[in-house]
Amino acid sequence: MYRYRLMAPGPTPVPESVLTKMALPILHHRTPAFEAVVEEVRKGLKWVFQTKSEVLILAASGTGAMEGAVTNLMRKSDVALCINGGKFGERWGKICKGHGLAYDEIKVEWGQPVKIEEVAEHLKNKKYRAIFATASETSTAAYHPIKELAALVKNDPETALVVDGITAVGVHDIPTDEWGIDVLVSGSQKAFMLPPGLAFASLSDKALKMAQESDLPKFYFNFLKEHEAIQKNTTAFTSPVSLISGLQEVLRLFKEEGLSNIFERHTRLAKAVREALKAMGLKLLAEEAPSNAVTAALTPEGINAGDVVKILKNDFNMTIAGGQDHLKGKIFRIGHIGYYDPMDMISALAAVESALVKLGVNLERGKSLGVALDILTK
Amino acid sequence: MYRYRLMAPGPTPVPESVLTKMALPILHHRTPAFEAVVEEVRKGLKWVFQTKSEVLILAASGTGAMEGAVTNLMRKSDVALCINGGKFGERWGKICKGHGLAYDEIKVEWGQPVKIEEVAEHLKNKKYRAIFATASETSTAAYHPIKELAALVKNDPETALVVDGITAVGVHDIPTDEWGIDVLVSGSQKAFMLPPGLAFASLSDKALKMAQESDLPKFYFNFLKEHEAIQKNTTAFTSPVSLISGLQEVLRLFKEEGLSNIFERHTRLAKAVREALKAMGLKLLAEEAPSNAVTAALTPEGINAGDVVKILKNDFNMTIAGGQDHLKGKIFRIGHIGYYDPMDMISALAAVESALVKLGVNLERGKSLGVALDILTK
Repeated sequence: MYRYRLMAPGPTPVPESVLTKMALPILHHRTPAFEAVVEEVRKGLKWVFQTKSEVLILAASGTGAMEGAVTNLMRKSDVALCINGGKFGERWGKICKGHGLAYDEIKVEWGQPVKIEEVAEHLKNKKYRAIFATASETSTAAYHPIKELAALVKNDPETALVVDGITAVGVHDIPTDEWGIDVLVSGSQKAFMLPPGLAFASLSDKALKMAQESDLPKFYFNFLKEHEAIQKNTTAFTSPVSLISGLQEVLRLFKEEGLSNIFERHTRLAKAVREALKAMGLKLLAEEAPSNAVTAALTPEGINAGDVVKILKNDFNMTIAGGQDHLKGKIFRIGHIGYYDPMDMISALAAVESALVKLGVNLERGKSLGVALDILTK
Repeated sequence: MYRYRLMAPGPTPVPESVLTKMALPILHHRTPAFEAVVEEVRKGLKWVFQTKSEVLILAASGTGAMEGAVTNLMRKSDVALCINGGKFGERWGKICKGHGLAYDEIKVEWGQPVKIEEVAEHLKNKKYRAIFATASETSTAAYHPIKELAALVKNDPETALVVDGITAVGVHDIPTDEWGIDVLVSGSQKAFMLPPGLAFASLSDKALKMAQESDLPKFYFNFLKEHEAIQKNTTAFTSPVSLISGLQEVLRLFKEEGLSNIFERHTRLAKAVREALKAMGLKLLAEEAPSNAVTAALTPEGINAGDVVKILKNDFNMTIAGGQDHLKGKIFRIGHIGYYDPMDMISALAAVESALVKLGVNLERGKSLGVALDILTK
C-alpha cells in the first residue's frame, strides 16, 4: 500500500484545515458575513502580492486572468511584446492572436531565461502597449528575470509589464510595487494550496489607467468592474464562496509561516531536489536560472522520461509530470510548489531513484537522498 | 440559537456527502483516475440536460458560459435577438453590447413571461443569428415559454436558440433535444447543489456548426476547444477538480432520486410556498407563469420588503433575497432550488409569517403553514 502522492507542479495538495474549511456550509455571497471574508482575503492577497493596489479575484483558471490582462490593457491599435520560453509563454501570443491583436514574440530556448538585452532592443525599436512575460515557466522549470524586465518599463507610463506569476507568487519573492509590475497574475491551485477555480490579478495605477482606455470587447473578465467590486469586498459575478473561504484559511496559514519563511522553504526544497537529481547523474533542463516551483530533469540517453513517470504512477502511486511538445519523453518534472515538506521531497526522490534503477541506470542507492537530506536538514 | 439557513435562489446549500467528497485529497486533472470522473460526469450531464450532444464544463460563473454562447455562436456581422424580462435577461444585451454586436431587445414587463407572438413577429421581420432567452428569470421568478420559443427556430438552420437555464436546469423539465434548444447554459450553485465555480453549456449540432463559423475574438471561453476536450473526458484548461468530483456525487444523488422526482419535488415545494404566501395575503410578482426555482412576493402597501429580509436575517439567521432595481423594497424572494425539503419551506414560511406580524400585518398565525403542509404532505 502506497498512499497517493501528488507531486506535479499543480494542482497541488490542499492542507487538511483548508479542505475542512471549504466543507463548511455555503455562505451567500451578498451578505455582510461573506463580505467580511472577502475583506480579510483582500488584505491578505495584497500582502502576498506585496502591493498597495487591489488584487482582483476571478472565478476561472489562471488562463482567464491572463486573457483578462490582454483584453483589459490592450487597445485594438496596440502592439504587444510576448516572451515565449515554453508552453505558458506561448499562451500570451495565442491569446493576442485569438483577439486579433498585433504582437511581436521573443522566442527563448526552452529551459533558458529571456535575455534582458533582447527585450531592451525590442523596446528601443517599437512602441509596445505591454510586455507579457512568464515568471516561472512551468513547462521548462526556468525562472525569468522579472525584476530586470520591470526596470525596463517602470518609468514608462505607456508600456506595462504583465507577468504570469501562476507558479511564482508565493514561491519566489516578487515585490510587485517595489519592482513596478503592472499586472501580476496567479491561480489558486499552486502556491495558494487550493483546488483550481480562482485566478488573481494585481492592478497597478498604470494598468488601471490602461484598462480605462481599452477599447477591446470583453464582458466576464472586466477588470474595471472587478476593481470596483473588490473595493466593496465582493466580486462582480457570483463569488466562488467555498474557494474564497478556503483562501481565507490559506492566508492565515501563510501569516503563521511568514512570507520570507515560505520563500525560504521553497528555495530549500527546490535546491534539495535539484542537487539530488544531479547526484543521480541527471542533467537539469533549467540550469542557469531554475524556478523554485518545479524541477525538470533530462533522462540519460536511451531512457524514456515517460517510463519514469509511469513507474512512479504504477509502483509508487505517485503523480509527477512528463515533458510537453518536443520535450516529451526527454524530461520529467517534480513539483515542489505549495503544501510540501522535506519528507515529501525525500519520498519523490526515493521513487525516482528506484525508477532509474529499475530502468537499468547504474546508481549508488541512497546517495541522492543523502545529498537532499544534507540540504533539507541544514 | 437558530442554525443558519440559506434560502436564497443561489448559491444554495450543498449536501453533506458532496461537501465531504470535495474535501478529499486533490486529484491531478491529467490522469486516468480523473478522466474516469469526467467520463461519468459527462454522461450524467447529458442525462440531466436531456441531450445526446456534449455538455461543456467551464471553470467560471454561469455568466462566463453566457458570454461564451454569444462569442462562439455570433459572427461580427450578425444580429442577435435578446429577450429581457429582468436582471438576467438584461445581461444578454449587455454581453452583446460589450462585444460590439448588433442586437434587438424585446423588453418584457418584470414578472411576466415573454409573448411568443412578439418573438415570432421579430423573426418575420429580420434575420437573427440567435435568440438569447432566459428560462427561469431569477430576479422576477417568472418562467418563460422555452418550448414555444424553441419551436419557432427548430427547423431554421440559420437561427439558434440559446437559453440561460441557470436556475431552470434540474428544476423544470427541459428536454433539450426534443424541444430543439441549441445552447442550454447552467451553473453549479443552483439545482446542481454545488458551490459556485462551474458553468455548463450544451451544444447542438447547429450550435457547433455556428461556432465553427464564428469570427469573434475569444480565448478562454472557446466552445470548439472545450468540445474537443470533453470528448476526451477532460477540459481545455485546468479542471476545477474538486467541484467536478463534487458534481460526480451530485449526479449520483440525482440518479437515486430520478429526474422526474426532482422536477416533482421542485414543483411541489414551489407550489406550497406560493399558496402559503397568498394565504398571508401577499401578491406574487409572477402570477401568470411562475418559476419553480424561486418565488417573489410583493409586500402590502406601506411595508418595505427589505424589512422582511432584515428580520429574517436578524431574528431567524436566515438569508432570503430582496428585490433588484425598481423592485427594491417592493418584493422579497424565497429560493426553493436545490437541496431543500418540505421542512425547509415550512421554516422559511414560518419566519416570513412572523416577520409580517412583527411589521404590523394582521394575520391568523399558522394558517399559511397549514396551507403549505396540505400541499407538501399530499
